[in-house]
Amino acid sequence: MKNNTVKNESITRLEDDFAQWYTDVCLKAELMDYSSVKGFIIYRPYGYAIWERIQSYLNDRFQKTGHENVYMPMVIPESLFNKEKEHVEGFAPETLIATIGGKNKIEDPLIIRPTSEVLFCEHYAKIISSYRDLPKLYNQWCSVVRWEKTTRPFLRGSEFLWQEGHTMHESEVEARHETLAMLEIYDELGKDLLAIPFVKGRKTDKEKFSGAEETYSIEALMHDGKALQSGTTHYFGQGFCKAFDISYQSKEGKLEHPYQTSWGVSTRLIGSIIMVHGDDNGLVLPPYVAPIQVIVIPIAQQKPGVIPAARKVCEALKQAGLRVKIDESEKTPGYKFADWEMKGVPVRLEIGPRDIENNVCVLAKRNTGEKISVSQDGLVETINNLLKTIHHEMYEKAHRFLLDHIKEVRSIEELKAVVDQGGYAKMMWCGDQACEDKIKELTNATARCMPFNQIEFDDVCPICGKKAHKVVLFAKAY
Amino acid sequence: MKNNTVKNESITRLEDDFAQWYTDVCLKAELMDYSSVKGFIIYRPYGYAIWERIQSYLNDRFQKTGHENVYMPMVIPESLFNKEKEHVEGFAPETLIATIGGKNKIEDPLIIRPTSEVLFCEHYAKIISSYRDLPKLYNQWCSVVRWEKTTRPFLRGSEFLWQEGHTMHESEVEARHETLAMLEIYDELGKDLLAIPFVKGRKTDKEKFSGAEETYSIEALMHDGKALQSGTTHYFGQGFCKAFDISYQSKEGKLEHPYQTSWGVSTRLIGSIIMVHGDDNGLVLPPYVAPIQVIVIPIAQQKPGVIPAARKVCEALKQAGLRVKIDESEKTPGYKFADWEMKGVPVRLEIGPRDIENNVCVLAKRNTGEKISVSQDGLVETINNLLKTIHHEMYEKAHRFLLDHIKEVRSIEELKAVVDQGGYAKMMWCGDQACEDKIKELTNATARCMPFNQIEFDDVCPICGKKAHKVVLFAKAY
Repeated sequence: MKNNTVKNESITRLEDDFAQWYTDVCLKAELMDYSSVKGFIIYRPYGYAIWERIQSYLNDRFQKTGHENVYMPMVIPESLFNKEKEHVEGFAPETLIATIGGKNKIEDPLIIRPTSEVLFCEHYAKIISSYRDLPKLYNQWCSVVRWEKTTRPFLRGSEFLWQEGHTMHESEVEARHETLAMLEIYDELGKDLLAIPFVKGRKTDKEKFSGAEETYSIEALMHDGKALQSGTTHYFGQGFCKAFDISYQSKEGKLEHPYQTSWGVSTRLIGSIIMVHGDDNGLVLPPYVAPIQVIVIPIAQQKPGVIPAARKVCEALKQAGLRVKIDESEKTPGYKFADWEMKGVPVRLEIGPRDIENNVCVLAKRNTGEKISVSQDGLVETINNLLKTIHHEMYEKAHRFLLDHIKEVRSIEELKAVVDQGGYAKMMWCGDQACEDKIKELTNATARCMPFNQIEFDDVCPICGKKAHKVVLFAKAY
Repeated sequence: MKNNTVKNESITRLEDDFAQWYTDVCLKAELMDYSSVKGFIIYRPYGYAIWERIQSYLNDRFQKTGHENVYMPMVIPESLFNKEKEHVEGFAPETLIATIGGKNKIEDPLIIRPTSEVLFCEHYAKIISSYRDLPKLYNQWCSVVRWEKTTRPFLRGSEFLWQEGHTMHESEVEARHETLAMLEIYDELGKDLLAIPFVKGRKTDKEKFSGAEETYSIEALMHDGKALQSGTTHYFGQGFCKAFDISYQSKEGKLEHPYQTSWGVSTRLIGSIIMVHGDDNGLVLPPYVAPIQVIVIPIAQQKPGVIPAARKVCEALKQAGLRVKIDESEKTPGYKFADWEMKGVPVRLEIGPRDIENNVCVLAKRNTGEKISVSQDGLVETINNLLKTIHHEMYEKAHRFLLDHIKEVRSIEELKAVVDQGGYAKMMWCGDQACEDKIKELTNATARCMPFNQIEFDDVCPICGKKAHKVVLFAKAY
C-alpha cells in the first residue's frame, strides 16, 4: 500500500487542521468546485449524485405521507416579502436583490428567494377556501440564496439546494403532528441512508426560525466536536395565515385560519456526511447513499483474462442492482486504491490472475480497511451483506462518538471545558434568554436544542441560580 | 352526461378563441397558477408531476448514454457573461440583474442565469487538461430567467424549468454525433411519452442559438396550426472554447481546443401537450406522462358495498404499478366525470352496484369518449392494453394532423395562404437571409427548420427567383 501513502499526503491530516482537511476532501473527492462568485459553488457529478440519492429517499417518504411537489417562483417582490414582520427581520440582512430587468429598473425590486414561506402563503390564500381544501401538503425542491459573509462548501453558502415543505391544516393538533412527523422522517433519513445519529429536539426561542412559533431540529455531531444543525421543522400556528389573510370555511360554516408548518433539509447534509464519517484518507461514504458502492480494480490487468473476468464480475453486480464501477485506467493499483479511498467508495473489489484461478476475489472495506478473500459464488449476497454490515458499523461508530460526547455540566466552567474540547454540554436551564446570551458571550457555544429526552438531572440553572426544569444541549456549532 | 355539459361551459371553446381556451385549460386543469410577478408562474402539483415524468424519462436516457448531472450557480457575473460576443448580444436584452447583496451594492452585477454556457465553460477550463478528461457529458436540471415582455404559461415565461446538457469532445465528429443523438432522444421522448410527432431539422442561421455554429430543433404543430419549437440541440464547434481558453493535451502531446455541444428541453413541452391533444372538455393527457392514468368513480356510492369494491379495484391496479386515484367526494358522478375530463385523465373507471354484481366495470377513454364494459378478471392487463391503444391513437391522430398540414408552396401568396390557415409551408429556399426576412415581413411566418427530409420538389426560390436547393418549413410560431 505504498502508493496509497504517497498519494494521500495531498490532503491535510484531520488532526492537524480539521477545517483544511474538510476543504481538501470536498475538492479532492470531486464533490464540488468553486465558481467565480463567492459562496456559489459548483455541485460536481459525484457530489450531486449524493444529493440525488437523498432526494430520492425523501421524495418516496414524502409521497407515502401524502405530500405533493410543486415549484414556486424564484423571486419575491420586496413588498410581498415585507408582509410578515419577524420573518423579514430575520432574512432581510442577507438577501440578494434584483433591480434591473430587460435593461429597465424594476419598481418593486425582486428578492431572490431565501426561503418561500411568503410565496406559498400568497398561493394558499388563493386556493384555500373550504375545509375540503385542507390539508395542503406541498413540498418544493429548489435552490435558495442567502448572501453570506463567511461561506464554506455545503455548510454555509450564498446558494444552496434544499427541499422546503409548506403545509396547511385544519387543526392545531394536526399541524403539530406534521411538524414532528417530518422531523421523524429526517431522523430516519439519518438512520437508513446517511448512517448518522441525530439528536432531535426543540430550539430555544432565541434560536428558532424567524416567524415560527416553534422550531425543531436534528443536530449532528462532527468529528471535531462541533454540532451541525442538519434539518429543521417549524410550527407556525396561524401567524402567517393572519398576515396573508388565509382562511377557510369550516365544516360548521365558520371562517377560520388554518394552522401552518414548514420544514427543510439541504445540501448541508453532504457536509454532515463528510465530517461525521471522513478520515485521513478522505471521504467515507455510507453504502446506501454512495453513488458508487463497489469499485472493481483489476490486478495485473495487462495479463490475459484479467480485464474480462473483472468486467464479468462488474456486470453481474450491476445486474443485481448494485452501483458498481470498474477502474481500467493505466494507473497502478496502489494509486487506484488511494483514488477511490479518497472518494469514499464503501467496498473495493480486487481481482487478479490468482483470484481468477481460485474463483475468489478480495473485498476491502473503506470504513475499517479490513480485507477478506471471498468466493465468487454467491458474490451478490456476500456484498449485500457486507454493505449492510458497513452501514451498521458506521452508524454505531458515530453513535458511540455522539454518546461519548454528551456531558452533564453544573457550572459555566464545566460547560466551557466541554464545548472547548468538543461535544455537547447538557445543562439544566431556567428558560431565560439572558442566561443563553451569557453562555454565548463567555464560551461561544449556542443552545443546539432542548432534546426530546428531558430527564432532569438537577433543578438549578448554573448561570443565574434560579429554578431550572429544561434540559438543554449547548455546543459550538457550524 | 348532463352535468358534464353544465360544468364544461366554464372553459372557452377551442374553435372560438384558441388562446383563451389554452389559458382556461392551464388554470382549470390546475396545472399552474399566476404569482404576483409577471411571467413567474406557480407549477401546481398536477403540472409539476407531468414535468417530473419527463425528467424521469430523460434522466434515464441521459444516464444510459453516459451523461452525469451537475448543478451550477444560478448567477453569472456580468464580466464573465460578456466573454462570448454573439452569446451576450443574444441574451443581454432580456436579463434579470441582481445589484444588491446583503444591503450592499455588488461591484460586478450578477445576471440570473438565462442559460449556463459560460458557467460550464469556466468550470471546464479548470477541469479539462488532458484527452483523458474527455468527453465531458454534463447535464443540469434547473430554472432559468429571461425577462420577457409578453408571457404565456409554459410557452414563454420570465422563469421556466429546463434541462441543459453541455458537453465537450475530442473531435468534431464526436461532437456532431452528440448534437444529433440528443435530438434523437428528444424525438423519442415525443414518441414514447408525449404522443407528439416532431419535425426534426436544422435551424437557419437567422434562427440559430446565439453563439452556436449550428442549431437543430424538434418542432411540434399545435391545434391552431402554429408551430412550437419544443427542444433544441446546438453544435458550438470551438468558439466558446477559444473565448474561455479551454484546451487539452491530445494523445499526440499537442494542445487542442475541444468541440462543444449544448441541448435542452423545457416546461414548454407541457404547453405542447396541451395544445396538441386538448379538446373542448379540457386537457387530454397521453397515458405514459399522465400523473393519474386511471380515475376510479364509484357509482351510487352511498349504496352498501360500492365504496369497498371500488377501493379494492383501485388497490389492485395500484399494486400492478398503475397510477390510479379514486374520487370518493360528495359530488355527483356527472360532475366528477367533467372534473377528471378537464384534467385529462386517460381512463375513467366506473363501478356501481350492478357492475359489482356482474363482476364487471366500465372503462371510458378520455381521447375518444368511447365506453366499454369489461370483466374485472384480468383488469390490469385490459387496462395496460387500453393505455397502449390510447397512446397509439393519440400519436396517430397528431401525426395525421401534422402530415395534413405540411404543404408545398411555390409562391409567397401560396405560402401566406398556408401559414394564415395554419400549418407548415414547405418551400425551396436559395439560402439568403434577405428572403427569410421578406417572408417574415409579409406573412409573419418564420423558418422553423430545414427538415432532415430534404427531398427537393423544385429548384427555384419563389422569393428571389434564384437557384434553390434547400427545403425549409415556414410557419407562424409561438
